[in-house]
Amino acid sequence: MERFQAYVDANRTRFLEELKELCAQPTIAAQGVGLEETARWLENRLQRLGARVQRFVMDGSPPVLYAELGAGERTLLIYNHYDVQPPEPLEEWHTPPFEPTIQDGRLVARGVADNKGDLLCRLQALEAYQETIGPLPIRVRFVIEGEEEIGSPHLILFAEQHRDLLQADGCLWESGGKDAGRRFVLTLGVKGICYVELTVRTAASDLHSSWGGVIPNAAWRLVWALQTLKDANERILVDGFMDHVRPPTAQERAHLATLPFDEAQIKDNFGFADFVQGLSGVDLLVQHFYGPTCTICGLKAGYQGQGSKTVLPCVASAKVDFRLVPDLTPELVLELLRAHLDRRGFQDIQITDLGGTRPARSSLDDPFVRLCAEVARLTYGAEPVIYPTSPGSGPLDSLCRDVPTVMAGVSHANARVHAPNENIFLDDYFQGIRFVGELVRRFAAP
Amino acid sequence: MERFQAYVDANRTRFLEELKELCAQPTIAAQGVGLEETARWLENRLQRLGARVQRFVMDGSPPVLYAELGAGERTLLIYNHYDVQPPEPLEEWHTPPFEPTIQDGRLVARGVADNKGDLLCRLQALEAYQETIGPLPIRVRFVIEGEEEIGSPHLILFAEQHRDLLQADGCLWESGGKDAGRRFVLTLGVKGICYVELTVRTAASDLHSSWGGVIPNAAWRLVWALQTLKDANERILVDGFMDHVRPPTAQERAHLATLPFDEAQIKDNFGFADFVQGLSGVDLLVQHFYGPTCTICGLKAGYQGQGSKTVLPCVASAKVDFRLVPDLTPELVLELLRAHLDRRGFQDIQITDLGGTRPARSSLDDPFVRLCAEVARLTYGAEPVIYPTSPGSGPLDSLCRDVPTVMAGVSHANARVHAPNENIFLDDYFQGIRFVGELVRRFAAP
Repeated sequence: MERFQAYVDANRTRFLEELKELCAQPTIAAQGVGLEETARWLENRLQRLGARVQRFVMDGSPPVLYAELGAGERTLLIYNHYDVQPPEPLEEWHTPPFEPTIQDGRLVARGVADNKGDLLCRLQALEAYQETIGPLPIRVRFVIEGEEEIGSPHLILFAEQHRDLLQADGCLWESGGKDAGRRFVLTLGVKGICYVELTVRTAASDLHSSWGGVIPNAAWRLVWALQTLKDANERILVDGFMDHVRPPTAQERAHLATLPFDEAQIKDNFGFADFVQGLSGVDLLVQHFYGPTCTICGLKAGYQGQGSKTVLPCVASAKVDFRLVPDLTPELVLELLRAHLDRRGFQDIQITDLGGTRPARSSLDDPFVRLCAEVARLTYGAEPVIYPTSPGSGPLDSLCRDVPTVMAGVSHANARVHAPNENIFLDDYFQGIRFVGELVRRFAAP
Repeated sequence: MERFQAYVDANRTRFLEELKELCAQPTIAAQGVGLEETARWLENRLQRLGARVQRFVMDGSPPVLYAELGAGERTLLIYNHYDVQPPEPLEEWHTPPFEPTIQDGRLVARGVADNKGDLLCRLQALEAYQETIGPLPIRVRFVIEGEEEIGSPHLILFAEQHRDLLQADGCLWESGGKDAGRRFVLTLGVKGICYVELTVRTAASDLHSSWGGVIPNAAWRLVWALQTLKDANERILVDGFMDHVRPPTAQERAHLATLPFDEAQIKDNFGFADFVQGLSGVDLLVQHFYGPTCTICGLKAGYQGQGSKTVLPCVASAKVDFRLVPDLTPELVLELLRAHLDRRGFQDIQITDLGGTRPARSSLDDPFVRLCAEVARLTYGAEPVIYPTSPGSGPLDSLCRDVPTVMAGVSHANARVHAPNENIFLDDYFQGIRFVGELVRRFAAP
């Protein structure tokens, strides 16, 4: 890998210029801006690597780029996206979001951390490999979409129609990087999610609250239904729900004990006094990483303005998200929830499915996970932090079903992802290139 | 009373013109329009009756007019207000709201039903009495305020400072008239109210909902606290609350059985399937008239827009009104509620007092109530409908403490109070004058 590294060092300026060129393109899925241009730029870049590129457009979506290069017995799937968040609020940027700027060892630009940096460093790593070591000893399959920041509405369709293109022995997912202690982080999956709106209507219109003793009240119906879902001890009570939660193994618990998790810092950051139920230590981490959630994201009923209005609301609604761990699925949760409410006389509570994804979690013992950890140790000279899952969600399962997947990237704890002044460290970027180069080499012959 | 009635008949046109003159004056408390002008008009009208008039202004309020006339052992207190609701939406009026118009036997104008009709018919009745029968055989005390439609914010202060002016043997309150079956209605009081906002904050800002398993959620705290206040069987659970509820006597229950109450019509009007707990008949009326309420008037937390947002809300709030029957008071409810929440670990739920009034209810057996019923039978030629209380609230207790009070007026079931095309029937108006004349005569020597 010495020649590889020498090549990267020699091409440092060109690589950076190329990253600036990619980040200078606004590619805003939410606003439908610049998607085709960036897709074309990437197609061209992939073809220069020698990749065979296909584009898949579903219902007028921005193209999903699928690219293959290299040959070998083993296949590495790589997932990225070329779209970015909108740059607003513009006035809070110190430099223009689409004029990538180097400052204090960082590159500042919209999308550089999420995830154009991850994407391009992977392409440049493959270039360096081919230019210095030779033809790729593995098959690499890229899936690069343009709608991640608006929830990947077409990715599942693509995956279902092209399952054969997604066969692989391991997958490198987008996102990741270094934590607040500058430790490199590997994350082995995501929680699933089932997002519902619960709505109840009790009358044709709102009524004067003097009827409150005798006419049904939608807000009360909603409160009574909600309180059957989770109790004040934070136990999720949906019938059968917890039966599908796989508890952590002894090994997984032991692993949690090794994770850095600064409880005091988190309390301070978010301004709350205590974690629920006074949880701390490994028990807290078990709940956070291996527990499902049932979260009220919003409540709405009746009068919400200043002062008082004596009204009996005829409609009330709650937004609720369930974060899912194996073996829960959104389909199962919808079914359990309906049965749970019906069993308690809440047939009047309407459930609207606002979308879901399945959980996906690779094992700590998986050979691909072990390989990524080994490569991280080599690249960063220290033990990586391995999170068993992100507590958040993503379309990982739909793409990577049964393919061990690791999230590893070039971002960092203060990269201001989705916020003004998004940035990455240049050194992290070039370490990321090295990480991918090492991974390709060792993946061929683990 | 024949000469009285002959005088009223002879002056029918003048009386009506005078009512139109009063209703032509916009007197909109919410907009601060025309209050002084109407107060002056009334002062003048009262003085022409021979009344001694005082005006009380508190903190720049529109004047409370206090007027006394007549002499005798017994005193009748009369409460009215000279302000009206805003006329908007103007486009829904068939005739201009402040150009009183006679149509199909009705007078249409903003405020004619609520309550300039009630007010002026009482003055004209006293005029007719004095012109035909002689000096009033009782002392009449008028209290006429200009802020009823904005919640009477200064009336309590007036009452507290001038309790001596409010001594009386009976009080005729504003509002009332005929029901949908054209039966004349007497109402013997109001429920009290205690209106609170419950607010809880669990963190400094909203969080990503992936924290939902371990960081406290304000919306959940609120739901858990609310469900301790009333259960799904509509039982109010606030500790000690129901101990202060005076159940109806056997006589009061028997009286309820005589009331017209068209359950099917009410369900149809408001579009709901069943009264709570399947209540019907006398049990329903007991709950409606003799039961307190605990009503969620509004819920607010987190995201309420279209679709999904995965947010963990740091603030949640509910507006709750309690309608109070004797012997509950707003002060007591605030105290019980705080203790109830604290006892269950909800010290974090903040209670904001958004105002309250006490219940006031005269007895079915009270001699003044019996007198009003007798006068109603005489005037309307039929048994009046007597409601033990309005299920709504008003500042009755603050003014009439210990004075038996009856609400009786010249409005009707479709008078469109607070709405466009407010109206009264002319015949009801002149019957109302007769009612007051008879009441004065019989009140002197019951």
